[in-house]
Amino acid sequence: MIEPTYPKSFASDNHAGVHPAILDAMTAANPGDARAYGDDTWTADFGRHVKDVFGPRAEGFPVLNGAGANMVGLALMLGRYDAVICPDTAHIAGHETGAAERLLGTKLITIPTPDGKLRPDDLAGPRSTIGNHHDPQPRAVSISQVTELGTCYSPDEIAALADAAHASGMRLHVDGARLANAAAHLGCSLAAITTEVGVDVFSFGGTKNGALAAEAVVVLDPTLADAVPYLRRQSLQLASKMRFISAQLSALLTDDLWHRNASHANAMAMRLADGLASIPQIALAYPVESNAVFAVVPPAVATALLERFLFHHTDEAAGIVRWMTAFDTTPAHVDDFLDAIRKAVS
Amino acid sequence: MIEPTYPKSFASDNHAGVHPAILDAMTAANPGDARAYGDDTWTADFGRHVKDVFGPRAEGFPVLNGAGANMVGLALMLGRYDAVICPDTAHIAGHETGAAERLLGTKLITIPTPDGKLRPDDLAGPRSTIGNHHDPQPRAVSISQVTELGTCYSPDEIAALADAAHASGMRLHVDGARLANAAAHLGCSLAAITTEVGVDVFSFGGTKNGALAAEAVVVLDPTLADAVPYLRRQSLQLASKMRFISAQLSALLTDDLWHRNASHANAMAMRLADGLASIPQIALAYPVESNAVFAVVPPAVATALLERFLFHHTDEAAGIVRWMTAFDTTPAHVDDFLDAIRKAVS
Amino acid sequence: MIEPTYPKSFASDNHAGVHPAILDAMTAANPGDARAYGDDTWTADFGRHVKDVFGPRAEGFPVLNGAGANMVGLALMLGRYDAVICPDTAHIAGHETGAAERLLGTKLITIPTPDGKLRPDDLAGPRSTIGNHHDPQPRAVSISQVTELGTCYSPDEIAALADAAHASGMRLHVDGARLANAAAHLGCSLAAITTEVGVDVFSFGGTKNGALAAEAVVVLDPTLADAVPYLRRQSLQLASKMRFISAQLSALLTDDLWHRNASHANAMAMRLADGLASIPQIALAYPVESNAVFAVVPPAVATALLERFLFHHTDEAAGIVRWMTAFDTTPAHVDDFLDAIRKAVS
Amino acid sequence: MIEPTYPKSFASDNHAGVHPAILDAMTAANPGDARAYGDDTWTADFGRHVKDVFGPRAEGFPVLNGAGANMVGLALMLGRYDAVICPDTAHIAGHETGAAERLLGTKLITIPTPDGKLRPDDLAGPRSTIGNHHDPQPRAVSISQVTELGTCYSPDEIAALADAAHASGMRLHVDGARLANAAAHLGCSLAAITTEVGVDVFSFGGTKNGALAAEAVVVLDPTLADAVPYLRRQSLQLASKMRFISAQLSALLTDDLWHRNASHANAMAMRLADGLASIPQIALAYPVESNAVFAVVPPAVATALLERFLFHHTDEAAGIVRWMTAFDTTPAHVDDFLDAIRKAVS
Repeated sequence: MIEPTYPKSFASDNHAGVHPAILDAMTAANPGDARAYGDDTWTADFGRHVKDVFGPRAEGFPVLNGAGANMVGLALMLGRYDAVICPDTAHIAGHETGAAERLLGTKLITIPTPDGKLRPDDLAGPRSTIGNHHDPQPRAVSISQVTELGTCYSPDEIAALADAAHASGMRLHVDGARLANAAAHLGCSLAAITTEVGVDVFSFGGTKNGALAAEAVVVLDPTLADAVPYLRRQSLQLASKMRFISAQLSALLTDDLWHRNASHANAMAMRLADGLASIPQIALAYPVESNAVFAVVPPAVATALLERFLFHHTDEAAGIVRWMTAFDTTPAHVDDFLDAIRKAVS
Repeated sequence: MIEPTYPKSFASDNHAGVHPAILDAMTAANPGDARAYGDDTWTADFGRHVKDVFGPRAEGFPVLNGAGANMVGLALMLGRYDAVICPDTAHIAGHETGAAERLLGTKLITIPTPDGKLRPDDLAGPRSTIGNHHDPQPRAVSISQVTELGTCYSPDEIAALADAAHASGMRLHVDGARLANAAAHLGCSLAAITTEVGVDVFSFGGTKNGALAAEAVVVLDPTLADAVPYLRRQSLQLASKMRFISAQLSALLTDDLWHRNASHANAMAMRLADGLASIPQIALAYPVESNAVFAVVPPAVATALLERFLFHHTDEAAGIVRWMTAFDTTPAHVDDFLDAIRKAVS
Repeated sequence: MIEPTYPKSFASDNHAGVHPAILDAMTAANPGDARAYGDDTWTADFGRHVKDVFGPRAEGFPVLNGAGANMVGLALMLGRYDAVICPDTAHIAGHETGAAERLLGTKLITIPTPDGKLRPDDLAGPRSTIGNHHDPQPRAVSISQVTELGTCYSPDEIAALADAAHASGMRLHVDGARLANAAAHLGCSLAAITTEVGVDVFSFGGTKNGALAAEAVVVLDPTLADAVPYLRRQSLQLASKMRFISAQLSALLTDDLWHRNASHANAMAMRLADGLASIPQIALAYPVESNAVFAVVPPAVATALLERFLFHHTDEAAGIVRWMTAFDTTPAHVDDFLDAIRKAVS
Repeated sequence: MIEPTYPKSFASDNHAGVHPAILDAMTAANPGDARAYGDDTWTADFGRHVKDVFGPRAEGFPVLNGAGANMVGLALMLGRYDAVICPDTAHIAGHETGAAERLLGTKLITIPTPDGKLRPDDLAGPRSTIGNHHDPQPRAVSISQVTELGTCYSPDEIAALADAAHASGMRLHVDGARLANAAAHLGCSLAAITTEVGVDVFSFGGTKNGALAAEAVVVLDPTLADAVPYLRRQSLQLASKMRFISAQLSALLTDDLWHRNASHANAMAMRLADGLASIPQIALAYPVESNAVFAVVPPAVATALLERFLFHHTDEAAGIVRWMTAFDTTPAHVDDFLDAIRKAVS
C-alpha cells in the first residue's frame, strides 16, 4: 500500500500513477519471449475478456492512447467524403490537435449542447444534407461516455441515438475513455451501455482508470473488424511488445478492477460535490455523474486554490473549473481540498 | 536474474521482454502524482540526458513506437509537395502500412541498394527533378542506422550523405530504431553518428533494446523543435502518463545500459555468425554489423529449423532468412541454435 | 447581341453563359501552337494584367474553379497542424464537400456572424489556443468578399481584420469568387480591397462574372508565390492548354469588362430590391450590396414562384431565399420577376 | 480552315489548340441559362453518348483535367490502407506532383517494364502482401492506354490483366488520356478496350484529342458510380458551368470526331516514323503505336533540332526523345521536321 501524497492533483485522472495490480500484471508478463504485434497469449486472453464482458461478437484491439483509439475507431466507419456528428465539446473536436481533420480527412459537424450530450434531434440538421454532393455526408455519430462535462448517457439515451443514427445510414461511435466511470455511475454492466444499445464501435479506456498506457478499440459490428489491424498499424497505434498493453487491459477486466477503480473515483467526486453543497459562492456547473466535478468558482477563490492545488479552468470567463478524482484519490485528499476551498471562500 | 527459456526466438528483438532495470525505473516512477503529457520531472530528466549524450542543441521528445517516431520526425521536414528519398528496404517504405503516404501525404522515392545503405550518388536522380512543378520536391533523405539489412553506416558515410543532402536543400533523417546497436558495433558514441555528422532529426529506439515501449524523436536542427509537440499530439504519439515512457528512456541512458544491451546483442549475433562459418550450405547474405544475421539457407534446412525456432524469411525465393538476437539472448541460446542448424544441415 | 430568354434563372450567377467578349478572346487564342501548362504568351499577358491591377508584387496564377482557387490559396499558408478561422457561412466550410478537411487536412474554426462578415474580435477565441499543443494553431483567417450573404466588407473592415490577423501571426485569405461585384458595389478599385488593405492571398473569380471557367489565385505575399505551381499541379488545378484560361481572365481585366459585368449585375439586384420595397409580405434578409438579394418570403409565395423561376432557399425554415442576378440579367428579366412576385403575393 | 503555322511543336499534343468543331459546340451551348454543376441538357446528352459508346451500364462524369480524372477514378476504388499497382512510367507516378500520395493517401507500387505495359505476372509480388497488416493492401491496378511510352495494350492483354486483378480482389483502372489514339491504332471500338475486357473505371481524355479542357471519368462497375459526384466535388473537379465541358465531350463523340482526330494524329506519327527509317543515326526506342514517336537521337542532332523545334527528352542520358503529333499536325509539318532531322544528321 502506497501512502497518499499531499496535495493531491485535481487536474486530471491522468496525473495519477498506475494501480499496483496493473504494474504487477505487466511484471508478470515479462519473463521469456512473446511474439510481437499481438500474436501472443496475453492479447488472446484480452480478446476472451472482451467477449466475456461485451458479448461474443465483440472484437477488442489494444492500442496506445485515447486519441489513437478514437481515430482508429472512426476510421473504420468513414469513407472519403464522410462527416462525423459530435457535440462541440467532444474530445475529438477540441483536444486532439486536429487529428480528425488531418488523419481522417473528415469534417466534424459539431453540435452545441447544454450538457455535453447529443440527442436524436441533433441529427436533423446534418441529415438534411444527405444526398447533396456539395456536402460531406454524415456517416458517424460520435459521443463520449462519460462526456467531457462529466455527465452520462443513460442506456436508453444511447439506444435512441443509435436508432436515429442507423435509421439514417450512420453508425454510432463512443469515445469510452471513461466508460468504466459511466457504468459504475449508472450501476450497470459495460455491455449495457455498448453492446446492448446499438453501439457499433467504441473505445474502452484503461489509462484514466489506473493503467499505464492502454486503451482498446472494440468493434461490435463484425463487418468492420477485419480492417482494424491495418488501420491500427497505419495510425501508429500498434505496440510491438503488445503483451504489456494487453496485460494491463486484462488486469482491469479481472475481478472487476475496472469497476472498483471507477466507482471509487466516482465516490470521491461525489464526496467533493457533497462537501461543496454547504460552501457558499461555489455552484455546480453540471450534475456530478462520474469522477468529475465542474464548479463555478469566484476568480479570487480559484486563484487562492491554484497556489496549492492543480486543476484547470474549462471556461475562465465564466469561472468554471474542472476537478477530477482518480482511483487513488482518498477521502482525506478530498477533505483536505474541501478545507482549502472553505478557507479560500471565507 | 531470470532464467533463460528455450527455445529462444530469433525472429525479432521485439520478442524479448523488458530489461529488469527498465521495469524497475517504471515502478520507481509510480508513486504519487505527476502532471500529464510530459510536464513532469521524469521527462525533464530525459531531456537533460539527451543533451548530455547528443549535445546542447539536441531536444528529445518521447513517443510510443518506432513508426510514430519516424512519422513525427519526417513530418517536421516536409511541406505539402515534398518527397523523401530512402532505400527501397526502408522500414517507412515497406513495414508501416503506407503511413508515410497516408499520414504524411508524401511520396517515398525508393532507391535500390545492395546493402540497405544509401550513398550520395543516389540523390542525383531525385535531385534532377528539383524545380519541376510536375514532381514532388525531394526535401528529406531518410536512412536507417542500423539498416534493415543489419548493416551500419560509418560516421563518414553519414557525413557525406548529410553534406550531399544539405547541398541540395534537403535534410537528413535517421530511423534509429537500432541506433544503439550501430554505435556499439562501430565503437563510437551515439553523437558520433548523429550530432557530429550532420543529421537533422533522428529517432532513438528503446523498445528493441530492452524497453517496454519507448522511442524518442531527437531534433538537432533547432528551427524544427517547436513543431514537435503539435505533431506528436496530432500523430497520436503523445502519452498522457508520459513519466513512464521517459523513465524507460532515461534508464537506457543511465550507466550506459543502452550500450551494454546493444553490445551484448551484437556479440550474440557475431557468435552466431562465427558458428555459421564452419557450417556447410549456409552463407551470410550481408555482413554482420549489428544484432542481425542474414543468411542464405537451403529450404529444407529452414523448414527443419522452423519446427522449433521462430524466425522469418526476408526473401523466400532467394532462401534468405533473418536471425535476430536481443539483450536477453544468451550464449547458450546461440549454441543451442547452432546445434540445431548443424543437425538440420547434416 | 443575344436576345434574352425568359424566364431568367435567379438561382445563381453560374446559370448564365459566357460573355461574348470572353468567348471571342478564347477563339482568338486558338490558332497555332502554344506551350502547355502556362508557359505561353496569354498567361504571361495575364500576369502583367495582374500587376497592373493589383500592384507590382502581385503574382497571378490561373486555375480552374473557385473551390480550387480556395484550396490552393489556403494551402500556401497552412502547415500540418494549422487551422483556418472563417465565418460559419463560408463557402469553404459549407459547399465544398469537406475539401478543406480532406485535401488540406485543416480544421475550420467557424464563427457565427449576423451578416456573413468576420470582425477582429472574432479572432479572440481562436487566438487563446495559440501555443497549446492540444489545439491546431490558427494560422489563416479566410473571408469572402462578397460574402455568402451578399454583403461586402469595406476596405477599412478588411484592413482591421488583416491587422488583427497579422498581429497574431496569421495571414488573411480572401475568397474573391465575386470580388468584382464587391469592388463595383464599393466604388473602389480591386486593389483597394486587396493589395492596399493587407490581404496576403486571394482568389479572383471570373466564372460568376462572365467567364466560362476561369479563376485566379493571386499572391501578394511574395514569400508564398514560389509554392503555387507545385500546389496548383498537385491540387488538380493546372490546365494543360492554359492559354484558354488566361485569355478569359485577361479579357475580364481588359477595358474594365470585369467592372461593367459586375456593376450591371449589381444594378439588376438593386433594381430587384427596389421593386421589392413596395411589395408587402416580402422583406430583405440582409442589405443588398452585390448581385444577390436575400429575402424572407412566405412559403406559399415561394412555392408559386418556383413553378416558373429557378432559385434556392438558403434557410427553408426561416423562409429565406437567395435571388442572384448575372451579367446577362436584363431590366426586363427583373421586371418580369417582380411582376410574378407581385402576382404571387396578391 | 486555319492555315498551319511553322514550325509545328512536336513536344506535346497539348500544344495544339482546339478543334473548330469543338469550339463551335461550346459557342452553340452559350445562349441562355443552364443549371449549374451538371444538371443541364448538355451533360445529360453526354451521358447518353457514353452509354451509346460504352454500353448501358457505363456512367460518364465530365471533369476538368487528366490528373483530376485519374484521382477521382482511383478514389472510387481505394480505402484507407489500399495501394495501387502501376508501371513505374505511369503518369500518376511521375507527373502529378505526388497527388496520388497527397490527395488519395495511397502508396503506388511501381513496377519496372520494358515498354510501359503491365502484365499479369507483375501482380504476383504485390499480391504476396495481401493479408499482412504491415503492408498497404493492393486494391487497384492502374494502366495507361496509350501508355506513357506510346505503346498500346491489345484487348486481350487488358482482359488478362482485368482477370488477374479481379481474381485477387483488385479493380482495374485505365488512364485513358489518349484512349482515342489507342482505339484508332488498334482499329477497334472504344468499348473493345474498356467495357468488353473487364475495365472497372477509366478516364476518357478529350484535351489531347482536340478539346479545350475536357476529360471524363467513366464508371463501368455500377456499385461505384454513386460516389462520383461527391468525390468530383471534393477533388476540385466540378465545373459550375458544366455545359461547356459536356459540349466538348459530346462533340468528340459525335460523328466519330474522336476517331478522326486520333487516327489523323496517329497517321502523322507513323509518317514521321516511316521517314525516320531511312535516316541514319536515329533509331526508334519503342514501337510506334499511337501519336508518339520515341527515338534515340545523338546529342548533337537533338541540340540542332531544338534550335527550331519544341520537343522533350524523356531520358537525356540515353538520348531518348519524344516526338508527339496532334490532330492538327499536317503532312507538311512532318515533312518539314523530317527535312530538319536529315539536315541535322548529315
